[in-house]
Amino acid sequence: MTDRRYVLAVAQMGPIARSDSRAAVVARQIELLREAHARGAAFVVFPELALTTFFPRWILGEDERQSFYETEMPNADTAPLFAEAARLGVGFYLGYAEIEAGHFFNTAIVVDRAGKIILKYRKVHLPGTAEPIPGRTLHHLEKRYFEPGNLGFPVARTDYGIAGALICNDRRWPEAYRMLSLQGAEVGFIGYNTPDDHTGDFDFDNLTSFHNQLSLQAGAYQNSMWLGAAAKCGNEEGSRMIGDSMIVAPSGQIAAQALTTGDEVITARIDLDMASLYRRTIFDFARHREPEQYHLITTRKGPVVEV
Amino acid sequence: MTDRRYVLAVAQMGPIARSDSRAAVVARQIELLREAHARGAAFVVFPELALTTFFPRWILGEDERQSFYETEMPNADTAPLFAEAARLGVGFYLGYAEIEAGHFFNTAIVVDRAGKIILKYRKVHLPGTAEPIPGRTLHHLEKRYFEPGNLGFPVARTDYGIAGALICNDRRWPEAYRMLSLQGAEVGFIGYNTPDDHTGDFDFDNLTSFHNQLSLQAGAYQNSMWLGAAAKCGNEEGSRMIGDSMIVAPSGQIAAQALTTGDEVITARIDLDMASLYRRTIFDFARHREPEQYHLITTRKGPVVEV
Repeated sequence: MTDRRYVLAVAQMGPIARSDSRAAVVARQIELLREAHARGAAFVVFPELALTTFFPRWILGEDERQSFYETEMPNADTAPLFAEAARLGVGFYLGYAEIEAGHFFNTAIVVDRAGKIILKYRKVHLPGTAEPIPGRTLHHLEKRYFEPGNLGFPVARTDYGIAGALICNDRRWPEAYRMLSLQGAEVGFIGYNTPDDHTGDFDFDNLTSFHNQLSLQAGAYQNSMWLGAAAKCGNEEGSRMIGDSMIVAPSGQIAAQALTTGDEVITARIDLDMASLYRRTIFDFARHREPEQYHLITTRKGPVVEV
Repeated sequence: MTDRRYVLAVAQMGPIARSDSRAAVVARQIELLREAHARGAAFVVFPELALTTFFPRWILGEDERQSFYETEMPNADTAPLFAEAARLGVGFYLGYAEIEAGHFFNTAIVVDRAGKIILKYRKVHLPGTAEPIPGRTLHHLEKRYFEPGNLGFPVARTDYGIAGALICNDRRWPEAYRMLSLQGAEVGFIGYNTPDDHTGDFDFDNLTSFHNQLSLQAGAYQNSMWLGAAAKCGNEEGSRMIGDSMIVAPSGQIAAQALTTGDEVITARIDLDMASLYRRTIFDFARHREPEQYHLITTRKGPVVEV
């Protein structure tokens, strides 16, 4: 039974140290969950890779690397979070590194108010490189440590609307939101870890926060969706990561945004029916889209110049 | 021979009356062209349907309706614009209503510095309705007066970079920009007519200018393209149309924007190579896009809920 109006919370998290235990991280999440619940929230969005430090910044030995993946969910470390959420009747989105049958994914789950996993998504758009770039001390090795997601872009009918999950870099790609909205998604949950200083020649523009906001606002507006986006942020092991967690309305307006780069809960009362104002008019896809004109989007990976 | 750096101009135009002659409109355009040239511009973007009033706002008798379409281009009325542009060595984008073999299109052309048409585009995303909505005096009947474009999303290698053309409502649809960038487009030219007051229940949000800006910034950023977007604006026959013409960089930053709702030239010095900073990193499509995951974008027109 979907509530058409409810309070959505985003639980931004400050840095997680390389040496932090899962138990310590989960204790922080339970605090954030309780605050969100006390402020009326029915659902809480946690960040990407929310149980560990952002380990793709390093070349790691095999033992340490393996230590960052979860082999099952929930597990002994995360069971207290699932239990407390179920006790409070609050659903949540949680990102973590996953290993399954020898395959590694950057994964997010959506958990309902009873503590049941109702959606699993594996990140499709992996940024960065597989090999370290010479001269840098901090890397972005997601292509080394994860495979592209193999679950498509699933949606689920939830107590919080028809919902989809995206992860971090997905939010820059209009194709990702479109896959959700073409399945009727009304709300999207997104966790991210976005450094502003580790890629050297990429961060020439000092616009990392602007690009985060622009991508979220455009994705919400162009797909008539609510979005809740949660950062892991602050100075994490020498990497400066942006905060700017936000809740964005189907109008593209920012309904709430984080003001710190630490643990912080933001909330907004969302009305899923706000989307219908757009979906009946400018973004009535069934009247206005022209899919036969979009063929290159699915037949071509990179640009090809033929003129 | 493409100049990698040049001055781009956008020639915003104030209202055109229902009774204005083409000759009077072209005289205004020539003035704007001369100003742009005097300010160093190599190329000028004029608006959508830049030769006439925005006639799809009315149910028209057949004779008057026919009077708004061009049967050839250039023609006696527009020849002075072509001649002056060639004399000055300035290229331009121009939108107009076109009839060809009994078919009606909302069309834009790109003309090179020698006065030759090197690209023609016919608007794919027609907004509004085919039938008037009862109770309104001003309508948006593009689906009545035009067919969806049948030329795809062409690009051309020009003196101004690999260029594509979009028209008005196209700018809200990420698929349109993507079709251009997948063909290597470095710059996109866009004309528009965007009322903020004529659709009643659509303009509930007072965000028309914000949505124009958001769509252009996201389109430029997510496709690493320069965009030049020209409004026809002001109070045209009782319809209030937004201005906000702008030149947007591949970073998503606004390099120049119009400050009035009348005839106004804006310019920016653009550097096509700025795009490569993005295309080598976060938007290196060949490394990061996952086309096999986007199948619904080309196989599904409207949303289908299967959960």
